[in-house]
Amino acid sequence: MNSLSEILTLDSNAKTKEFKRGEIIQREGTSNSFAFYVKKGLLRSYTIDEKGKEHIFLFASEGWLIADFESQEFERPTDLFIDCLEDSKVVVFNRECFKVAALSDEQLRKNAHLMARRIAVLQKRVIMLMSASAKDRYNKFLETYPELPNRIPQRMIASYLGITPQALSSIRRNVLKSRQFS
Amino acid sequence: MNSLSEILTLDSNAKTKEFKRGEIIQREGTSNSFAFYVKKGLLRSYTIDEKGKEHIFLFASEGWLIADFESQEFERPTDLFIDCLEDSKVVVFNRECFKVAALSDEQLRKNAHLMARRIAVLQKRVIMLMSASAKDRYNKFLETYPELPNRIPQRMIASYLGITPQALSSIRRNVLKSRQFS
Repeated sequence: MNSLSEILTLDSNAKTKEFKRGEIIQREGTSNSFAFYVKKGLLRSYTIDEKGKEHIFLFASEGWLIADFESQEFERPTDLFIDCLEDSKVVVFNRECFKVAALSDEQLRKNAHLMARRIAVLQKRVIMLMSASAKDRYNKFLETYPELPNRIPQRMIASYLGITPQALSSIRRNVLKSRQFS
Repeated sequence: MNSLSEILTLDSNAKTKEFKRGEIIQREGTSNSFAFYVKKGLLRSYTIDEKGKEHIFLFASEGWLIADFESQEFERPTDLFIDCLEDSKVVVFNRECFKVAALSDEQLRKNAHLMARRIAVLQKRVIMLMSASAKDRYNKFLETYPELPNRIPQRMIASYLGITPQALSSIRRNVLKSRQFS
């Protein structure tokens, strides 16, 4: 979705790092957060509620940028954990490079496209979470992440959708059934 | 939150209009959507689900900007209705004025601040919707909109929070009780 060359102009000091599956690369409560551009592999951001339950905010496969923008914008400790669901190659950006004051006009113009897209995606996510049926949310997930269903455990897809794994498996059965008859 | 002078530089053709309480100023499915800056009064954006139930996405009182950014970014018909909860004075911007290509460097820089803030607010909203208790969501609502509780019917606050009016009134009773004893 974002071309790497566009992203790389944002921070000439950004380094590509390799992480192992299962590695946590950002923890909740960190005040020095980074932004991560995925060259290869799969990351996710998530929060853990008071009862210890995980809620997945975002998946990021090849070409996605993942970060805690709320923490960066308001200079607050992070709300989100970020970890690797697969061995991954990731470009690590300093949070400063997304600050408006630090950007050149050209960088700002490139960045504005990414920001506008992110606002649109988040708006849709809020509306879906509030008003769409679990089935519509699952279909939107497939549209947003067509390459992911076979790379992610069902329980994580359920967590992203805000439903139980049982509800998800019943939706998948119905989707399969309706495809067989159409 | 946004100074009017910053916003006004975005579109020199923007006009201030007056709307009556109850007027719908944008309908779902419109392809020519606008952005609205509230000088006086109170607007809200909302969606209506398949069962005819309303879900409130955002309130906008004095100083807020309200629009369907998803529709504007992807040039899709709007998902959101926008109407007036009070008689309102509103600056109406053309959707084109938020397109990156149409903005001068200076406008882009001002706009980037607004976009970064909106991303942060939306991220928080998604996380709260997914993982926070109804009580925490109510407290966040009070923090985001300190001036609104007395201007909005309870059922609309409940709709914004994604809970029933009954659940909201039980939360409010508990909040009041805990304040009396603290």
